[in-house]
Amino acid sequence: MERLERRVRELEEELGREKRGRGAARARIDTMSAEVTDSNPYSRLMALKRMGIVKDYEKIRTFTVAVVGVGGVGSVTAEMLTRCGIGKLLLFDYDKVELANMNRLFFQPHQAGLSKVEAAEHTLREINPDVQFEVHNYNITTLDNFEHFMDRISNGALEEGKPVDLVLSCVDNFEARMAINTACNELGQIWMESGVSENAVSGHIQLIIPGESACFACAPPLVVAANIDEKTLKREGVCAASLPTTMGVVAGMLVQNVLKYLLNFGTVSYYLGYNAMQDFFPTMSMKPNPQCSDHNCRKQQEHYKKKEAARPKEEVIEKEEEIVHEDNDWGIELVSEISEDELKAASGPVPELPEGISVAYTIPDKEENLITGETVAESEESLEELMAKMRNM
Amino acid sequence: MERLERRVRELEEELGREKRGRGAARARIDTMSAEVTDSNPYSRLMALKRMGIVKDYEKIRTFTVAVVGVGGVGSVTAEMLTRCGIGKLLLFDYDKVELANMNRLFFQPHQAGLSKVEAAEHTLREINPDVQFEVHNYNITTLDNFEHFMDRISNGALEEGKPVDLVLSCVDNFEARMAINTACNELGQIWMESGVSENAVSGHIQLIIPGESACFACAPPLVVAANIDEKTLKREGVCAASLPTTMGVVAGMLVQNVLKYLLNFGTVSYYLGYNAMQDFFPTMSMKPNPQCSDHNCRKQQEHYKKKEAARPKEEVIEKEEEIVHEDNDWGIELVSEISEDELKAASGPVPELPEGISVAYTIPDKEENLITGETVAESEESLEELMAKMRNM
Repeated sequence: MERLERRVRELEEELGREKRGRGAARARIDTMSAEVTDSNPYSRLMALKRMGIVKDYEKIRTFTVAVVGVGGVGSVTAEMLTRCGIGKLLLFDYDKVELANMNRLFFQPHQAGLSKVEAAEHTLREINPDVQFEVHNYNITTLDNFEHFMDRISNGALEEGKPVDLVLSCVDNFEARMAINTACNELGQIWMESGVSENAVSGHIQLIIPGESACFACAPPLVVAANIDEKTLKREGVCAASLPTTMGVVAGMLVQNVLKYLLNFGTVSYYLGYNAMQDFFPTMSMKPNPQCSDHNCRKQQEHYKKKEAARPKEEVIEKEEEIVHEDNDWGIELVSEISEDELKAASGPVPELPEGISVAYTIPDKEENLITGETVAESEESLEELMAKMRNM
Repeated sequence: MERLERRVRELEEELGREKRGRGAARARIDTMSAEVTDSNPYSRLMALKRMGIVKDYEKIRTFTVAVVGVGGVGSVTAEMLTRCGIGKLLLFDYDKVELANMNRLFFQPHQAGLSKVEAAEHTLREINPDVQFEVHNYNITTLDNFEHFMDRISNGALEEGKPVDLVLSCVDNFEARMAINTACNELGQIWMESGVSENAVSGHIQLIIPGESACFACAPPLVVAANIDEKTLKREGVCAASLPTTMGVVAGMLVQNVLKYLLNFGTVSYYLGYNAMQDFFPTMSMKPNPQCSDHNCRKQQEHYKKKEAARPKEEVIEKEEEIVHEDNDWGIELVSEISEDELKAASGPVPELPEGISVAYTIPDKEENLITGETVAESEESLEELMAKMRNM
């Protein structure tokens, strides 16, 4: 099999040379250049400097990003980062490519049966040989693997021994999200979470800075109302629906946020939701819960408070003003385009929540037949189960 | 070369069989099934029925969509539709794949030198052999090609002789957009337009129903403010910047709108903008200009008026209420999430516009240093040039 694989690569390369009449598919490039030639894969990215968007685009090469979950969102996320010329990617997944995944971007039918990380690495190396890859074909939630995962997050940067710059959660279940949350709280590692609903028509991304913004254990995950009765969904739903559109939009929002965070341009979003049914994209931010069940989250909150208190005053003023709503112990803040009035006018039943927690928003009642006002949890746990967890805090 | 190509395909197939221990890469599938097995590429799409999102997902196979421009947005658009199991795709482009395109999704370095439509067809057939493809490697704006383009739009559906269901404009210049606009106005063909700004951080999609919504000749293209001084951009910009993120998001919004339109679910957007700098996604709709320079647009407007007048009254009531702003001869309507108050509070200089036209919105003034309030035209023509055209109507 290996011999065959080598032969195909050789043949593909030979064929490529035949067709192009030049060298190998794409040689490594030492220095990113802004030169405007057809053969420069970085010209359109380096143009971001000339356009005044990014100051030092070439800095992208110094960063390491870990992508956990290489499925519908994670694979496209990894491809976008690869094409942007990220320095190093760490990929974690334990699943195999199946034909049932072909309704999402990235994987191809001939890869069915391969491990997702192996197939992804092969494709991504072809696309951009300048990126360094480190792939791990395991489930991060088992004890041994979790320790190894923690170790690689702490030491797996381009310069071995240094931590990665960002961890991206592109997993599809609550347990794996909680494992990433636990690791990042312990390490003080900044990460971004992403999710797509089981009915395929909503999704979100979230930036979590341990101690500064709410972690995944601080509150039930924020969800975008998808106008579907969750009970119906849970009762009949054994196979989640998915769409390449929703997954592509969520991956695009995620990597855009990563680029803005790493390369320091635009406004980095703490939470950005996507409701495909109405093309509604709410943004918001949420403070950490002082009673969070994760003690490392509480520790990070103390660190953050001390750091903030020690900051020179002018620096503090530079920060965007935070509007905390009254009667809101959780500090859920809306920075969405929807107005307070619209929010108040929003209708639909609100799920029963423990005191102090509220659903951040429901969608304004435009079309009666479309709206039920219920929310759909992206995780495999139902909202009820999450609520039960909250009560036990 | 052909012999080599065949050999590689053979070897790839052989390798795939080795690895998977089953048949060919992916056999054709006669009937879409909802069966939940790893080998069913349609299970996650057919699940949309069980989730109550789409009534007849299988109907996707009856539709034909033409994609004009197979670049950063068009290629991903075509891939999404292919993975969704669209019946037939017509692809139009005259460009070749270059390494300079590798900062966007879809094409791979080994395809450099191939025509975009040829390379795209090869990849898309591998992904889904159930889709029919018809590709045209030419520029639609030349006289002969334009006639042929019109003919294929009118006759190129799955059932030869019937018109396509939708035309998608994924081109990067004003001339090609105008050609599509002219063709669709003449044919009464519904189409969707997409665009990404030259600074890579904003984009939009737009649904054009001839006679019902504003065509591309009715008004200057609606643009999403990108907080960049356009003059700087135009002065220095010889090579447009682009990002896989922005292009992926725009392609996702476009195909999501296509699915909603064809499969009749959710709310189809007339205009959806994307400002990546602030994660701002305005929606709106715009009525056609009764003095449009395209006589076929004016003719379609007459048709539409007659059709509307003849509709039974209850049907008319069902339509979403349209709020037309006073002092707005162009009938620009905001259906965005931003409130009237926010709109009034929005600041930043507004470009000088001919009477009766106004920029539909500017972004609320949050961070002074980021906002200049100027808008960036997505087309190759400057806003000034477009305004000059408007004045000559």
